This record gives sequence, structure tokens and C-alpha cells, in this order.
Amino acid sequence: MTRIITLLTDFGTADGYVGEMKGVLAANAPDCALIDIAHDVSAHDVEGGRLALARYWHRFPVGTVHLAVVDPGVGGSRAALAVESEGRFLVGPDNGILSPAMLHPGARCVSLSIPASAAPTFHGRDVFAPAAAKLAQGVSLDALGTMCTTPIVRRTSEATRRPDGGIAGTIITIDRFGNLVTNLVARHGGTIEVAGRSMPMRRTYGDVASGEIVALVGSSGLVEIAVRDGSAAATLGAARGDSVVLRVNP
Amino acid sequence: MTRIITLLTDFGTADGYVGEMKGVLAANAPDCALIDIAHDVSAHDVEGGRLALARYWHRFPVGTVHLAVVDPGVGGSRAALAVESEGRFLVGPDNGILSPAMLHPGARCVSLSIPASAAPTFHGRDVFAPAAAKLAQGVSLDALGTMCTTPIVRRTSEATRRPDGGIAGTIITIDRFGNLVTNLVARHGGTIEVAGRSMPMRRTYGDVASGEIVALVGSSGLVEIAVRDGSAAATLGAARGDSVVLRVNP
Amino acid sequence: MTRIITLLTDFGTADGYVGEMKGVLAANAPDCALIDIAHDVSAHDVEGGRLALARYWHRFPVGTVHLAVVDPGVGGSRAALAVESEGRFLVGPDNGILSPAMLHPGARCVSLSIPASAAPTFHGRDVFAPAAAKLAQGVSLDALGTMCTTPIVRRTSEATRRPDGGIAGTIITIDRFGNLVTNLVARHGGTIEVAGRSMPMRRTYGDVASGEIVALVGSSGLVEIAVRDGSAAATLGAARGDSVVLRVNP
Repeated sequence: MTRIITLLTDFGTADGYVGEMKGVLAANAPDCALIDIAHDVSAHDVEGGRLALARYWHRFPVGTVHLAVVDPGVGGSRAALAVESEGRFLVGPDNGILSPAMLHPGARCVSLSIPASAAPTFHGRDVFAPAAAKLAQGVSLDALGTMCTTPIVRRTSEATRRPDGGIAGTIITIDRFGNLVTNLVARHGGTIEVAGRSMPMRRTYGDVASGEIVALVGSSGLVEIAVRDGSAAATLGAARGDSVVLRVNP
Repeated sequence: MTRIITLLTDFGTADGYVGEMKGVLAANAPDCALIDIAHDVSAHDVEGGRLALARYWHRFPVGTVHLAVVDPGVGGSRAALAVESEGRFLVGPDNGILSPAMLHPGARCVSLSIPASAAPTFHGRDVFAPAAAKLAQGVSLDALGTMCTTPIVRRTSEATRRPDGGIAGTIITIDRFGNLVTNLVARHGGTIEVAGRSMPMRRTYGDVASGEIVALVGSSGLVEIAVRDGSAAATLGAARGDSVVLRVNP
Repeated sequence: MTRIITLLTDFGTADGYVGEMKGVLAANAPDCALIDIAHDVSAHDVEGGRLALARYWHRFPVGTVHLAVVDPGVGGSRAALAVESEGRFLVGPDNGILSPAMLHPGARCVSLSIPASAAPTFHGRDVFAPAAAKLAQGVSLDALGTMCTTPIVRRTSEATRRPDGGIAGTIITIDRFGNLVTNLVARHGGTIEVAGRSMPMRRTYGDVASGEIVALVGSSGLVEIAVRDGSAAATLGAARGDSVVLRVNP
């Protein structure tokens, strides 16, 4: 079976940086399939990259190599990582972007050595892509670096229980449709409070009229607030980081 | 020969939704080639998706599977379709986006069953991608659902003849270059009226000076209005849906 | 080994033009791997396309075919080219976009014949993609057209030495992060003057504090001006074409 290498970056594509990475991958891992995930993650938005990665990494077949490079600390002291988790491999900077796979039970992690010839501003091309190509060619994780011993950066977004019994969460991202994605793990029933409004949990967009606000369990199992045929972000003036509260029906 | 699955959506890529679909495809149709068409169709713009699909679907080899998911009605009562037309397969919602292939003579159509486990907000991942993977693996159309019997949504954009002999059309889309694409099937010669101006049909952009307006037969056989080295949409203040008239030379 | 065809255009993807090109490639070069470089080059920005191409073309394996179509002169008198350089092939219009490969020593170039059936507004689909497919299928360069004899368009961006000993350069492009890329070939040490400011050359972003301006040797070997965790273009109000001066330490 053809080995797959996926690519997620905040590089855009017009400048040719992703093209360079793909050239390195094609030259060092011939006959692998390159699959674009996204290159339009907002510049330096590690959190956005992490949340996207959380959605797709485990859906690809065992053996897939995921490159994820949103790397504002490039050339500084941050480590460069390769991870094996659930049979998939991941490569990227030590800034939390790989957390969804790295915090999975059983995950193993190595710190990549950085060759002196690597451009200090472009580890995507000179460190991460070569490591991804090696993994795709069957080189073992252990052969790529030294086992991580120092703490690595971990990013999570967990809701907390409030004294009054509500679950306090936040809007962790807003998608292209203006849907507000929260860190509230879905419960059946209950009421959502956001931007001074309160609404019951529903099943899907069609459960309200066009233009109405609706709270539901999104496709990743998290509570989302949407506006049918519209944008909840625009309607509610909501932004990433805003508070939401889930009140479970007694 | 490697089976091809193409992808057209209005999901953007940064949120990871397309990544999830690709993971499902890669896991269920190993060794198929995934080819991106576009993910930046305007949100909920079924018409834009249909017009793009009309351009490319028949140019791919026989056996290709085209996924096309612009799906504002997801989770509601709209059907989920798989189509076989001219040896190609298409999968997407019953909102007219598949019309270019579905209205072709000899096309066959089935209504996909929607598993109870499908997220009501993401049929792209849970209904359409699995169906596309099956088709790419050689499963027959008939095995995927029940033959469509109820009317399906049909979208067309046909010009009409006016009492005065002119052909009345509309601007059906505006491309990235600001070219106005109409639904007027090309005739040799004739005059185009748009936005209060009148101009003869030409052959190509170079037939007028830089900055000048030109009407010509576009690469899909439809009349287009362009500005050489500029944007006709900006120059004429034109929008999708505006009227155009073709007057054929006597 | 699977032959690779890469694609660079200014077509965007939503209109389906790139989809048409990919259909032609898939139909005429079955089992080739299509790799997207970029489709969001600014409309008609031949220079931006050339600079991106300069970064990636030689990083792909020998035998790769690079399609590069930013083509404001389509349908006019400009030639259509296919180039062989360092074992890679390139196809695109004669407007300088292929210069990075074409000006390489030993490069060979043919002028493609343009079939009468080609749409005068879309040579990407009807001229360049078919030629790329043939090259990927092993057809020789010489079989595709006639050796170029008339001068072809050459684009370069070379800095010049000033009477006062400084090297006068320009900002040749601004990347997605707001980094100013110049045509100054890197020297160790020295001082950069840009937008009325003067700064020493550094090694990487982390050599200055967050929000500070830094000049360094970029990953393509050219001097770049960046703002750590910010945009140099916004901070300095700089634009493509602006002057920069390098003063080498005595």
C-alpha cells in the first residue's frame, strides 16, 4: 500500500515554501502519496493547527505520516519532534501542535537532531520534511533522534465545572461558516449560554428556522453554536476565547 | 490504472473538515489518488459548485469518482445522491450541484441510505466520502442505495429568446479575473449588450487594447465579457444575475 | 517510479479551471502523480510565479514535469514553451515565468505548436496541460515543437554595486508572513538599510526581541527583513519594488 504523507502548514502556497517541502518529500520518499490538509492556517496560529490536526490525524490509515508545521519559534530553542501514536507518525515543532496525538496513551516521542546545514528560518524544508520522508520510507522512530525526556509542550482545552453546577467552557475556534466550536463535550439535552443568550441543545441546523441560532453537538463531539444559513460569529459578535456555559438538565 | 477521487467543497481547508474526509477516503479506498478541485467555493454557494463541476467532471478518465459537497441542507430532509454518467461517478447532496452530470442522457441515480451513526452536520465525512470510497473500490452504483424515483433537484441556466429577436441571458458567475461568464451559448458574430454598453463579439483578449472591454466565446463555449489586463466586474460594476443580451447579426 | 506533474497557476480553484487542467492531465497521463504547488498567485503576477518557481523546481526528482501558467498574454502572440533543464521539464508561457530553469546552463527550449482547436483564452487546458502530459509519458522535448531560435523573455532580479560601495537591491516579493525578500545575495555580516532604517545582519528571528525588526539570510540564500512575531511589511510600510541597500563591513 502506498505510504501517505499529509501536510498542514500556515505557509500559504503562493510563496513556494510548500512547493519546496513537497520537492524534498518527493525526492526522498519516491512513490509516497502527498495529501494536502491545509496551508491557510492563520499565520503563527498553533492553536488553530492543533484543533485541525485533532480532527483528521487518526482517520488516516496506520502508517500515515502527518507533517504539521506552524512554527513561530523556528530557529530558536524549541525542540523538533517526531511522534508515533496509534500506528501513525507525526512530525512538527514542540509547541503543542502535535498534542492530540502526543497526549494519546502509548504515544512515543523523539527529539530530532537539527543539522548544521538547516536554514534557521525554514525547518519545514530542512528538518521536518526530511524526517517525514524517512518515516514514510520505513525508518524507525528511534533512528531519527533521542527519546524525549524533558517536558514537551502540551496544549489542551478542557472545560471546568462551576460552583453553581454549570460547565464553563470557551469558544476554541470559529470555522469557515461562522460556527462557534466550544470545548464542551456534548451532553444530551441541556441549555447553552453564550453572548448573553440562552438556548436549548438541538440535533441539527434544520431544527430551527433560517437565520435562527442553534446549539448542537458538532461532528467532532463538541458543542457548537451555529446560525442556520448564516454566521453565528457575525450574529453574536463572538470571538475565539469567549465564554460559554452548559447547564445540564436536572 | 489508479482510481481517482476528486474533491469539491465549500469547507475551506484550515478547519480540518476536508482533512477528515480525506482520511476516510484514504482508509476506505487505499491506493486511490485524491485530487483536489476546490475547497474555496463560497460558503453555501451550490450554484458556484455546479458551474465549476460542469467544467471538469467529464474531462477526467472513465471510472473517476467526483465528490461534490456544498450542502447547506445537511441534516435536513434533502436526499444524498450517487450518480453514474458517461462512465464517471458523482456523489453529493440532492440540491442541484450534480446537475451537469445528472441531466446528461443515460445518467443513473441512487439515493444513499444515511446511517444512524452519521453526524447530522457532516454528511461529507459520514455519508458522501464512504460512498465515494466504495465506488472507487468497484462497488456498483445499485449496491449503494435505491434508484431515485422522486424528482431530484435540477439546476440549469438557459438563455431565452426575446420578442425583438435578441437572446436574453444572465451573468451566471464571475471568475477570479473578474470575467463575466454568461449563459449565452456562443454564436459567431453578433453584439453583446451589458451594463448599458454594447460591443461586438471578438476572438480573444488581445483583440482590444489594454484596459478595454471585450466580449468573446469563453473556453467553456459560453459568452464572456472581460477587460484586457483588468476586471470586467470592477469596470462595469456587474454582479452575478445581471442581464445580458446577445443580438445576432442579420 | 511514478512520474510527477506539479501545477502552479494564478487561476484560483473555485472556478474549476484548474479542475479542467487536472482532468486533461489525468486522462492523458494516467498513473502520474499530480502535485499542487499554488493556484493563489496574484492574478497576472508573472513575477510572483517566477520567484515561487525558483524555489521549488530543482528540488523535485529528475523527470518531474512542472506546469507553470500565469499567462496574461494568452491568445496573443507570445510563444508557448517547453523546457528541459537539469533533467526536469517545465511547461508554460514565454513571459519569463520559466526563467529560473531556462537560464540554467544547458537548458533546452522548444516552442510548442498551438492547435487550431485550442481555446484562445485557455492555453493552460488546451496547450500546456497536453504538453505536460506528453512529457510525463516519456515523449521527448524535441517531439513537442521546434527549438527556440528567437529570443525568449528572460526575467532576472540582480542587485547592482553603487559608487559608494554599497549594494543596491530591491524588495522582490513579500511573503505571507510580511517578510520582505530582497534580491541581495547573502553576505556574512554587513548592514541593511531599508525604509530609512539601518540594521545589522543577524542569523534568525530569535536573535531579536518580539516585535523587533531583523535582517537575515533567508532560506533561499537572499537577504530578508522580518519582524519577529509580526509583519515587516506592515511595520515598515514597505512594498514590492522598494529599495534596500547592503553595506558590507570593511
